[in-house]
Amino acid sequence: MKKEFVRYIRSLQDTLTEALEAVDGTATFQEDQWERPEGGGGRTRIIENGSVFEKGGVNISEVHGTLPESMQTYFGVQDANFFACGLSLVLHPKNPFVPTVHANWRYFEMYDQQGDIVDQWFGGGLDLTPYYLFEEDVIHFHKTCKAVCDKHDDSFYSNYKERCDSYFYNTHRNEARGVGGLFFDYLKKTPQRSMQDWYDFVTEVGDSFLEAYLPIVKKRKDLSYDQKQRDWQEIRRGRYVEFNLVHDKGTLFGLKTNGRIESILMSLPPHVQWRYDHHPEPGSEEEKLLNVLQHPKNWV
Amino acid sequence: MKKEFVRYIRSLQDTLTEALEAVDGTATFQEDQWERPEGGGGRTRIIENGSVFEKGGVNISEVHGTLPESMQTYFGVQDANFFACGLSLVLHPKNPFVPTVHANWRYFEMYDQQGDIVDQWFGGGLDLTPYYLFEEDVIHFHKTCKAVCDKHDDSFYSNYKERCDSYFYNTHRNEARGVGGLFFDYLKKTPQRSMQDWYDFVTEVGDSFLEAYLPIVKKRKDLSYDQKQRDWQEIRRGRYVEFNLVHDKGTLFGLKTNGRIESILMSLPPHVQWRYDHHPEPGSEEEKLLNVLQHPKNWV
Repeated sequence: MKKEFVRYIRSLQDTLTEALEAVDGTATFQEDQWERPEGGGGRTRIIENGSVFEKGGVNISEVHGTLPESMQTYFGVQDANFFACGLSLVLHPKNPFVPTVHANWRYFEMYDQQGDIVDQWFGGGLDLTPYYLFEEDVIHFHKTCKAVCDKHDDSFYSNYKERCDSYFYNTHRNEARGVGGLFFDYLKKTPQRSMQDWYDFVTEVGDSFLEAYLPIVKKRKDLSYDQKQRDWQEIRRGRYVEFNLVHDKGTLFGLKTNGRIESILMSLPPHVQWRYDHHPEPGSEEEKLLNVLQHPKNWV
Repeated sequence: MKKEFVRYIRSLQDTLTEALEAVDGTATFQEDQWERPEGGGGRTRIIENGSVFEKGGVNISEVHGTLPESMQTYFGVQDANFFACGLSLVLHPKNPFVPTVHANWRYFEMYDQQGDIVDQWFGGGLDLTPYYLFEEDVIHFHKTCKAVCDKHDDSFYSNYKERCDSYFYNTHRNEARGVGGLFFDYLKKTPQRSMQDWYDFVTEVGDSFLEAYLPIVKKRKDLSYDQKQRDWQEIRRGRYVEFNLVHDKGTLFGLKTNGRIESILMSLPPHVQWRYDHHPEPGSEEEKLLNVLQHPKNWV
């Protein structure tokens, strides 16, 4: 399973960066290979200053070794060894009408002292963060998510959609980071479902990413925008930073356990603004977005 | 003590905002008075888009009531009532040659069920975050800090200077947020020192703020700078955001206990950049600053 999923994320990284470069048309991904002193490493691919993508990363990592202390406490185990691998991506488009997107698919194994697997699970998802609300775009994104889910279980979409809404939530602002998508974790073997079943589900979600996101990019990337709309995008990006640095478990875990900082913080947007007590004008397009973020809704 | 310190911070807020407006010459502080549903409130004063100060706040608050649950755990008490008041300021100048400054002076009381004081202490300090290193400016700032400390105790400066260096430290970057200053907390009554002694010390530190900071502002505010220097400032401001959102106990406490978000996050800079794996050129002025942040030194 480990080998199979590693092979999958490596190949998916190639597929994604190639397709994204083709859409961008100008910039290419720069690759950094890195090693983790305690075991494993990763392949970080970053795009900057593109025609479409102002900043983004499509990163994979495979790490293993002794479970860091903070994670031992978290999982309630002692002296365990682990293996973890995954693909993480964040794309911050230049045009405020193109939404930011985040996705992640990961696999985790935990071993006893004899090296036998004592626990294993998949996790991940994908979610969309628009600056302006085009309902048809959000519906398209969620429909794609739902179609993959429905192939596996009728309950998956509503379940993982709801978990996405509650996870990517800035509690200190009382608003969602974006318009959601899917979020799942601890997908473990059950009497009804094998690890192979979960593998099939997670990889099919991964395979659906371009279909979920690219049509939106293509439809909006050439719309013209003004400085006010760009300012709004940069202010909203501030909320993205707030979520990632204050609430996101993966980011904080990485920062506090000596992860590769530059690969983790590739998620932060290139240009960001904070203004004191900023509120969009009543009835504006900006306020329309805020209303949806404050009251997450069903899109399909 | 409570009344006396509240009177002090109210008057200090006036003194500071008046002096800062005079230096800025263009922008004035806008005031927001707010109330805390659970008891107390504050007076937030924000300056934006000035000639000198791009964004900043000089805020006071006086809050009281039942100690929030998270704080009960933190202090190891149950069902306590508390009173807390303080002044917090952060100033982000426009010119990259003028350092950002932060300061805070606060007083805390804890009561038993009969309303008797069971604990009380002062805390606070001031610290400087330059984007370019003018050694004479840093020496001036620290000399001013040391002069106030030395009036009270020979050990204060070295002790509180060191605590400042270790508190304002981005562990995930292995670098200090800035070049330090003073940081002290839990200044409580001892056989040698009464609360009135601590009051005198803390208010004298407060009174020294303008003397520590304004001469630096005046000396650097009209230096000309180019886009590269401005970019460097915005990238370094990103580290400021990282510290405040990931590590700063006061910010996180506020965000997680329903504090007034806009007053807390006034500390975030107006324009910020994140670039992937950015490193200053070897031998550059930018690298000179980094070296000092990576190896905090003694300035006086």
